[in-house]
Amino acid sequence: MNWDQMFSDTALLMKRSAIREILKLTAQPDVISFSGGLPAPELFPVERVRHATDVILAERGSEVLQYSTSEGMPELRGLIARRLSTPNFTVHPDNILITSGSQQGVDMLGRIFINHGDHVVVENPTYLGMMTSWRPHNIQFTAVPTDADGMIVDELKPLLAQRHKIVYSIPTFQNPQGVTLSYERRLKLAQLLIEHQLPFVEDDPYGELRYSGEKIPTVLEVEAAARGSNTVDGHVIYAGTFSKILTPGLRIGYLVAAAPVIEKLVQVKQSTDLHTSTLNQFITYEIAQDEAFLASHITMLRQVYRERRDLMLRLMDEHFPSEATWTRPEGGLFLMVTLPESLDATEILKQALEHKVAFVPCEGFFTGGGGHNTFRVNFSNARPEMIEEGVKRLGMVLKDAMTVRS
Amino acid sequence: MNWDQMFSDTALLMKRSAIREILKLTAQPDVISFSGGLPAPELFPVERVRHATDVILAERGSEVLQYSTSEGMPELRGLIARRLSTPNFTVHPDNILITSGSQQGVDMLGRIFINHGDHVVVENPTYLGMMTSWRPHNIQFTAVPTDADGMIVDELKPLLAQRHKIVYSIPTFQNPQGVTLSYERRLKLAQLLIEHQLPFVEDDPYGELRYSGEKIPTVLEVEAAARGSNTVDGHVIYAGTFSKILTPGLRIGYLVAAAPVIEKLVQVKQSTDLHTSTLNQFITYEIAQDEAFLASHITMLRQVYRERRDLMLRLMDEHFPSEATWTRPEGGLFLMVTLPESLDATEILKQALEHKVAFVPCEGFFTGGGGHNTFRVNFSNARPEMIEEGVKRLGMVLKDAMTVRS
Repeated sequence: MNWDQMFSDTALLMKRSAIREILKLTAQPDVISFSGGLPAPELFPVERVRHATDVILAERGSEVLQYSTSEGMPELRGLIARRLSTPNFTVHPDNILITSGSQQGVDMLGRIFINHGDHVVVENPTYLGMMTSWRPHNIQFTAVPTDADGMIVDELKPLLAQRHKIVYSIPTFQNPQGVTLSYERRLKLAQLLIEHQLPFVEDDPYGELRYSGEKIPTVLEVEAAARGSNTVDGHVIYAGTFSKILTPGLRIGYLVAAAPVIEKLVQVKQSTDLHTSTLNQFITYEIAQDEAFLASHITMLRQVYRERRDLMLRLMDEHFPSEATWTRPEGGLFLMVTLPESLDATEILKQALEHKVAFVPCEGFFTGGGGHNTFRVNFSNARPEMIEEGVKRLGMVLKDAMTVRS
Repeated sequence: MNWDQMFSDTALLMKRSAIREILKLTAQPDVISFSGGLPAPELFPVERVRHATDVILAERGSEVLQYSTSEGMPELRGLIARRLSTPNFTVHPDNILITSGSQQGVDMLGRIFINHGDHVVVENPTYLGMMTSWRPHNIQFTAVPTDADGMIVDELKPLLAQRHKIVYSIPTFQNPQGVTLSYERRLKLAQLLIEHQLPFVEDDPYGELRYSGEKIPTVLEVEAAARGSNTVDGHVIYAGTFSKILTPGLRIGYLVAAAPVIEKLVQVKQSTDLHTSTLNQFITYEIAQDEAFLASHITMLRQVYRERRDLMLRLMDEHFPSEATWTRPEGGLFLMVTLPESLDATEILKQALEHKVAFVPCEGFFTGGGGHNTFRVNFSNARPEMIEEGVKRLGMVLKDAMTVRS
């Protein structure tokens, strides 16, 4: 049977995620890998998950293992709503849909908003997993340049004269760069969204992992305030997750949006996978409803990841050649390195793998070309001694590459 | 913001699942509901789930809570492969992709096979959840009539002269009718699929729940044998699940297909939700690898569900008016009742709800009209005393309806 002739046009536009293929390459146990977006497994609240499972199965029994509603567990939606609310901004549980990880949220948004051939605005570079998911809709990406303060919103403005369908961005501790959209730019962005009646996807998996600098309100909140609203009834759809603050293996994410969008998303969710695992929603709720624990757990994560970020930056300053530059993120899991134009990060990865150290070349994160000389480095997953050894090796590989070129 | 103007064409073709909306209506605690497709929660292996979670978290630790591969846990894929293999038919782990319930498998198949406006062959009536998922592709359904032996394959043959993309069917203990495709028809169907080079989706959530009659090989196996093959390299894509034999709340299903189809499905899975919950795959594997337990658990389920089916059929014989007819399934969760043409099952549901008893009208399961006088009855979820009371009430409602009409 010739399957290629059977596949849909959409399917033919699909490819394996380049990142996940690189992750397979770098998954050998003797490689020091800075390539994944993995949280540190030694910090997972394993005993909490075990205890929570015991408690909910004892107290709620078979309900925890039965089919449940597509919207998600009401208590968990309530908890998420409370966590996102501030004194001037109220999120209602009705504005929340539970998803199987925030990747599913992003994928579902592609399904409900994007027609074949639509134009979508993104920052450049942007999250590869979004592109993998949305590309089969045969969309055109319009890339807005970024700097240390995130998307350069002034450059977005003239682009909006054209017909765009939606804007997608990771405003806080962006993947792959680690940069954060400044408050001033959030304000400007909100005005543009309102003026152009444009939906905006705020993908925010890392927002709670801030290690330095001042907390900035979400675009969700800033846009509401700009309209004089104190609730979720505007242009921003927010995607969040417990993957980075608890564990990713439970696959519990959520979307926050105006009621008509949630209504449409419930329809997609029903037809996609009926609902997210009942058990995992109960486990997540049981752990997260202990607010003191969750707060102290996040504080602990911030402390450990801050140390790893600081260590990595210090070692890079020490060992990397002066021709390389890199971002200095205030939070999240990643930073991005830029090499001289003459170098190709994919070629250098091959040499790095010979020295048993790995990263992710960022070329695939750039829409419409460029970025061949950039790569992403994760600082959350490896332990300090591995960071130390890995950055040294990487510094050597980079210096070798510079020497060859010069 | 006018969201309706923002939604994609696909999204505008989506509706809330009619079933899930009916389930909400019938979910009041004092209603005896035969409407859902729920397994009996009192039979869930709650203690096994608790114990399995303890064991895997103790033995495998944080691995159980980390991101994992899109294909699914290798051990679980191996276990499923072994369970589906027979002396003459070998399923390889590479032919298996783990999904978040079999609904996700059906949804992903729609994405990789169906183009906008394609023609799809289904049995009439067929599973509403498939229609909800595939309809946004704006497909045309071609309905093949069914009888007590399932899809009338001889009526499929002339239809295949036209250009169809794919055939979807639940050959065993079909939803909503409970009927099973006979072995002779499976042979004929296999020949047609081979002759017309047509992909076939065998949706088989209930196959292991047989209460009487002889086990019939899957279409997956029959089609392979018809080509002289003893492995998964043909036209059939098989969707299975642990929802009905363990618990649905874990959302662990799987697809079985030829290697090129699995390759494409992995790409969809990556972009859809990265992977199915690592924890739930480990729990399912830990429970199911105890083959003696799983076998005895399924034997127990068969025993209890057989008693409920038998009780329901006996009571229907006793209390239902003679003008009604119904299927007598050899397994699964459902039977279907047909009333005289002059009656409307949706109207009768309103009267039934007044008497605190519920079912699902089947009109929505019929593609292209018809079925207004049919309804589906679930016999797995309610305990015997509820079945007794519920069928009595329903018999009364039906007799009343007949009287009004005569």
